[in-house]
Amino acid sequence: MAQINKNYLKLPGSYLFSTIGKKVREYGEANPDAEIIRLGIGDVTQPIAPAIIEALHSAVDEMGSADTFKGYAPDLGYEFLRDVISEKDFKARGCNISSDEIFISDGAKCDCGNIQEIFGLDNKVAVCDPVYPVYVDSNVMSGRTGEYDATLERFKDVIYMPCLEENGFMPEIPTEVPDLIYLCFPNNPTGAVMKKADLQKWVDYANENDSIILYDAAYEAYISEEDVPHSIFECEGARNCAIEFRSFSKTAGFTGLRLGYTVIPKDLTTGGDELWPLWARRHGTKYNGAPYIVQKAGAAVYSEQGRKQIEEQIAYYMGNAKIILEGLKEAGYSVSGGVNAPYIWLKTPDNMTSWDFFDFLLEKANVVGTPGSGFGPHGEHFFRLTAFGNRENTIKAVERIKLL
Amino acid sequence: MAQINKNYLKLPGSYLFSTIGKKVREYGEANPDAEIIRLGIGDVTQPIAPAIIEALHSAVDEMGSADTFKGYAPDLGYEFLRDVISEKDFKARGCNISSDEIFISDGAKCDCGNIQEIFGLDNKVAVCDPVYPVYVDSNVMSGRTGEYDATLERFKDVIYMPCLEENGFMPEIPTEVPDLIYLCFPNNPTGAVMKKADLQKWVDYANENDSIILYDAAYEAYISEEDVPHSIFECEGARNCAIEFRSFSKTAGFTGLRLGYTVIPKDLTTGGDELWPLWARRHGTKYNGAPYIVQKAGAAVYSEQGRKQIEEQIAYYMGNAKIILEGLKEAGYSVSGGVNAPYIWLKTPDNMTSWDFFDFLLEKANVVGTPGSGFGPHGEHFFRLTAFGNRENTIKAVERIKLL
Repeated sequence: MAQINKNYLKLPGSYLFSTIGKKVREYGEANPDAEIIRLGIGDVTQPIAPAIIEALHSAVDEMGSADTFKGYAPDLGYEFLRDVISEKDFKARGCNISSDEIFISDGAKCDCGNIQEIFGLDNKVAVCDPVYPVYVDSNVMSGRTGEYDATLERFKDVIYMPCLEENGFMPEIPTEVPDLIYLCFPNNPTGAVMKKADLQKWVDYANENDSIILYDAAYEAYISEEDVPHSIFECEGARNCAIEFRSFSKTAGFTGLRLGYTVIPKDLTTGGDELWPLWARRHGTKYNGAPYIVQKAGAAVYSEQGRKQIEEQIAYYMGNAKIILEGLKEAGYSVSGGVNAPYIWLKTPDNMTSWDFFDFLLEKANVVGTPGSGFGPHGEHFFRLTAFGNRENTIKAVERIKLL
Repeated sequence: MAQINKNYLKLPGSYLFSTIGKKVREYGEANPDAEIIRLGIGDVTQPIAPAIIEALHSAVDEMGSADTFKGYAPDLGYEFLRDVISEKDFKARGCNISSDEIFISDGAKCDCGNIQEIFGLDNKVAVCDPVYPVYVDSNVMSGRTGEYDATLERFKDVIYMPCLEENGFMPEIPTEVPDLIYLCFPNNPTGAVMKKADLQKWVDYANENDSIILYDAAYEAYISEEDVPHSIFECEGARNCAIEFRSFSKTAGFTGLRLGYTVIPKDLTTGGDELWPLWARRHGTKYNGAPYIVQKAGAAVYSEQGRKQIEEQIAYYMGNAKIILEGLKEAGYSVSGGVNAPYIWLKTPDNMTSWDFFDFLLEKANVVGTPGSGFGPHGEHFFRLTAFGNRENTIKAVERIKLL
């Protein structure tokens, strides 16, 4: 008899953002007049920039003509895209990452979720708490986490690194040595960033302990301060211990276009085994490339016009972040993030639970945010708002929250 | 110390089509004047049909305007696409498949490769031999196949169902009962099809033995004869034992656009566990939707104009199939397939191995095909040609082969 993968049954509840979507949908149906403002799921609202739209139209035309039609993409992605990424995202920052160390994909979420497949099931995983749920859930599904302890709200075999007010939402080196360390900076959900010297300590630690860092840099475009690394490969020795994930979703509004990439240095090994060929094999076997037209759109992000336009877009969202940050401070909330990241992390008032505050905000202000506890037990009593709304709605949402 | 997934080391050689790509690239570089005709990897050559191009342009425009911009897609895919699929691909054929049993994805290859994740590692897998490599390789990677026996060219714990000249390239019910049965009809690589009564026997067998059939119907659009089912759900009882994969790649030339879908009936269970929620969870956690513009393109495939145009395209490719089939017969080859499928399956002359014939054809005729042995040991001494070239090249390739 066919048997299901029983690891799935260990997952508590449904995927966080699916749950939020369902709650909001139900509230909207019950209250058709409510003008709901969504600052919950980290989805962007600004349209794709004109230079990118132009590139898309032109690529669509290519697909419509026999001479320029493109079928299956090359395994790692088109060279025109990998070359410009290598130049602009890495070499320009002094990182020695070559085109063939870049794997184009349909987004960082997929890559973050799939990367664990190239590692054995006995690896010990460390994650921040709170954390982007995909890192944990994908490891649960494959059987790397042990059982769920409902009292502790934790999986038995996962190392959790609490990110608290007290430590500035920064993980501390765990007492037990992990094999795989998920780090995300600028952080989702807290919006915290790690300075270069601090990240260097993690790189050194990983190299000393033969751990691999899985570094999610999906929000690097929002870094505004100096001395905050955009890539882990700015740190010395990172080529020997790190894999990096990048996304076009927040950088250029590609949440609905789907494009990202993963960097695996060719000389990265663990236990004597190279990682690059494993991911190449996985990529070639279980994936079939991002659409040509979307890869062309990705290349346009790096054009002079494209770059200028997305910088304006990022400035726009960071303007929203400032409005939320200052508005909530004025209203007496304890808030962080929002300076080098599009996320604002706030403490719920009156020690409300995160989900109670979610319901409260949805019902009283018709504003949707994300409950901090959805990101892990140490997210309890916190709440995430995003800067990805449009300006008008962001202002309106903050005004409504102020009136509560 | 981080450890790799050692199952990857069991995989013999590299992914078949990557190997072919490399060989062809090297030959091309060494022989820059050679006019190479590619009838190897099943990639299409005809441009995307005008009605679909129009839909793409219009969707791109939507992405460029704040009022119509689309971010993250709904978890299962856009309703406008799932609804039309349910109507046209299923209800029109008398199959009771509803919109919410359809999961939109970026292609059948990914879905075929990922589907095994929702099943336990102890399931016994059965595949045809020869077979599309993704079914086997994805199970190897997750550790469901045991060791590779290089002498037998087989994985110890996989049930292989030989598809031979003697049995008309049709698998026979295996003696050991499998838990998961991969079937692909119209078949890749042999081009063989199963009549409805024959497929019904498999459905009955699966229901009697609590097996799940993973049915790959990526080539259903090429069926020209009556009494050949386009979907396994045309068979009675399939809702209780089958998952189906569909692709826009060959139906509408989407190899470079990436779109497909998977059908999991809501009432499909195994061992008392429902499968739909598991795939929904996997989809929501490790995937983030096909691009909106590509989903709009997919919907245009079902429009009156779109349907007409892709039917012409399919007729064009099947014209190629006829040219190859008849040309090779004339040249004395033993050939099959090519009537309900875009693949022609031929016996190599003089008992040549498949790879020797590959080299022979590449060097003497500058024609690229796919070695049958790349699909499994019973593919040895066979060779696959595809009808996806353009007419001129197809005629030229056949002429060159005739002259050998």
